[in-house]
Amino acid sequence: MKTKNLVSRLKKIKMVITDVDGVLTDGGLYYTEEGMVMKKFNVKDGMATRLLREAGIIQGIISTDNSKIVSKRGERLKLDFVYTEVWDKKSKMEELCEQYKIKSNNVAFIGDDINDTGIIKAAGFSAAPADALPQIIKLVDYVLKLKGGQGAFREFADLILSAKKAKPA
Amino acid sequence: MKTKNLVSRLKKIKMVITDVDGVLTDGGLYYTEEGMVMKKFNVKDGMATRLLREAGIIQGIISTDNSKIVSKRGERLKLDFVYTEVWDKKSKMEELCEQYKIKSNNVAFIGDDINDTGIIKAAGFSAAPADALPQIIKLVDYVLKLKGGQGAFREFADLILSAKKAKPA
Amino acid sequence: MKTKNLVSRLKKIKMVITDVDGVLTDGGLYYTEEGMVMKKFNVKDGMATRLLREAGIIQGIISTDNSKIVSKRGERLKLDFVYTEVWDKKSKMEELCEQYKIKSNNVAFIGDDINDTGIIKAAGFSAAPADALPQIIKLVDYVLKLKGGQGAFREFADLILSAKKAKPA
Amino acid sequence: MKTKNLVSRLKKIKMVITDVDGVLTDGGLYYTEEGMVMKKFNVKDGMATRLLREAGIIQGIISTDNSKIVSKRGERLKLDFVYTEVWDKKSKMEELCEQYKIKSNNVAFIGDDINDTGIIKAAGFSAAPADALPQIIKLVDYVLKLKGGQGAFREFADLILSAKKAKPA
Repeated sequence: MKTKNLVSRLKKIKMVITDVDGVLTDGGLYYTEEGMVMKKFNVKDGMATRLLREAGIIQGIISTDNSKIVSKRGERLKLDFVYTEVWDKKSKMEELCEQYKIKSNNVAFIGDDINDTGIIKAAGFSAAPADALPQIIKLVDYVLKLKGGQGAFREFADLILSAKKAKPA
Repeated sequence: MKTKNLVSRLKKIKMVITDVDGVLTDGGLYYTEEGMVMKKFNVKDGMATRLLREAGIIQGIISTDNSKIVSKRGERLKLDFVYTEVWDKKSKMEELCEQYKIKSNNVAFIGDDINDTGIIKAAGFSAAPADALPQIIKLVDYVLKLKGGQGAFREFADLILSAKKAKPA
Repeated sequence: MKTKNLVSRLKKIKMVITDVDGVLTDGGLYYTEEGMVMKKFNVKDGMATRLLREAGIIQGIISTDNSKIVSKRGERLKLDFVYTEVWDKKSKMEELCEQYKIKSNNVAFIGDDINDTGIIKAAGFSAAPADALPQIIKLVDYVLKLKGGQGAFREFADLILSAKKAKPA
Repeated sequence: MKTKNLVSRLKKIKMVITDVDGVLTDGGLYYTEEGMVMKKFNVKDGMATRLLREAGIIQGIISTDNSKIVSKRGERLKLDFVYTEVWDKKSKMEELCEQYKIKSNNVAFIGDDINDTGIIKAAGFSAAPADALPQIIKLVDYVLKLKGGQGAFREFADLILSAKKAKPA
C-alpha cells in the first residue's frame, strides 16, 4: 500500500467510481434455470452513497457486467451515473473527468479484478476489498479490511470522508 | 463497552427494540431486475422473540427501510409493533414509551449504523452486532459476539433474559 | 463433550434424526414480500444421506418448522421420514423407535437450539454444529467442527459411518 | 500435497475439468416449495474461464448433478463442454481425452467430494478447494487457499496459467 500523503491525496477527491461484482457484492451470481437472476448488495454501502452525496462528491458505477440489476441498484442509490458493459474503464473515467471538469487525481476508484488494472493506475486514489485478486491487492493504494459485499465500499467512503474533515497538517 | 452495573440495568428492561438490516440480517439486499426483492433472516432470532414474549417483554422493530418484507417478518414473529420508513428512531421510541407507560431506561435497543445513534444514546441499554459500524461499536453499552443475521439478536435477547433470572447482588 | 466410549456407542446407531434450520441450513430464512420462500441446503449433506442409506441406516427429519420446503428436500434425499411442525421431538423419536423396533440408544440426533433439548437428552448419541446455541453446545455428546449449512450433517454422518467400520477394541 | 515438479507438470496441462457444487459454488442448494431452484456462482471464476480460453486451454464441467442451472452457467462462460448427471467422471474424462487427442497427464481437475475420487487419481494434476471433504484434501496434488464459490476455480486457473508462463528450470 502506498499510504504516503494519504490524507492530502484523499482531500482532493471529488468523484468516487466503483466496480460492482466483488466490491458492492461478494462476487456471487445467483443462477436459476433462466440464467443469472440475482445479486446481493449491502445496506452499509447504501448508507455510504448517502454520505458521499451529502458531502457533494460525484459518484457512480462502471461495470463490465451487462445486467439490469446493476442499474436498478444505481437508481435506488440515486447515483450520478451507472455505466455497464464497459471493458475499458480507464477511458470511461477520462470521459467523465472531461464531462465533470475534474482531473484524474480528483477520482477515487475501488475495484477487485484484473479488468480494473487500467483505471486503478489512472485514478488519483485506488482501493480494493480485502478479498480482491492478489494482483489487485499489490497494485492499489489502499487495501480495505472488509471484503466485497460486506461493506468494503462503506469503509472506502468513510476513509475519504474522514480525510476531508481532517485538518490540514 | 459500559458494562458497569450491567445486570441491574438489564433487570429494568421491559421493551426490546431492534433495527432490521445488519442486525436481523447480514445487511444483504437481494436484487433482481425488479429491484430489491429479498432479505435473509435467521431462525435463531425467531426463537428469541418467542422467549422474550414468554417473559412478558414488549418487542418490535423500528427500521428506516420501506420494504414490506420487514412487515412480513414482523407478522410471522408476532411482534408488538413494526415501524418502517422511520428516520428519527429516538422520537419513535419516546412515543412508544408514552404509549406503553414505561421509561427510556426500560428500553433495550440493538442497532448497527449511524442512523441508530440517537436511539442508542436515549435507550436504557444498547447493543450492536460484532460487525456494526466502528462508530456504533464505540457508542453502545455492549458489543455482541455474533454478527448481524447470524443470531446477534438472539444473543442480545438471551443476555437480557438471563440477567432477569439472575439473583440480585 | 462426553466422548468416552464414543466408538462403541456409535456402533449401536441404527437411526439418524436431524433438525433442519441451523443444521441442514445456516439458519437463514429468505423472505420476499410473500413471506418466507427459500432455504439453502448443502450438497455435502446430500451425499451424507446417500452414504447412510447404503450403510442401511434409517434416517429422517424432525422439524418444528411448517414449511413445505423441508418436505421437498426430504423427498429429493429419499429420507425414510420427514416430520414438520413437531414441538415435542422426543415423543416423536419414541414413536419412531416403536415403529422401527429399535431403542433410543440406537438413535443419533443432531440439533442446534433449545427446542432440541429433550430429544438430545433421550437419544443414544447427540451432536451439534459448531455454531449451535451455547446451551446446546454444552449439552450434546459431540460438537462438530463445521457450522450448520456448511456440511455439519455430513461430518456427523461420516463420524457414525467410520465408527461402524472401526474394528472392536 | 504432492507439489514435487509442480511447474513442469502444470506446463503439460491442455484441458481443465471442474466439478460444480462445492467448487464453483459453496455447495449451497437454494430450495423453494418447488424444490431446488438456484445456485450461486462467482464472478471471479467467470474471469478465470476467459483467461483459460485466451491461453488456448480446453475447459468444461463434469457434474453428477442433473440441474439445467449448470448448463446455463456453462453457456454463459462459453465452455467447451458441460456434462451433467455423470457418476463415472473418470470414464468421461477418458472419452474427452480420446476426442481431443490428449492424454490424462494433459488434464487438470478440481473437485471436492468422494464421487471425484476416480478422476482425481486419473488426472495429470488435481486440486481441491480449502473446504473440500477431508478424504479429498488428502488425495489431491494441491489444496487451494480459497473455498468453493469464493474463487477457488480462479486460484486453480491462475496457478496453471502462471506455471505456463514460467521459464523452464
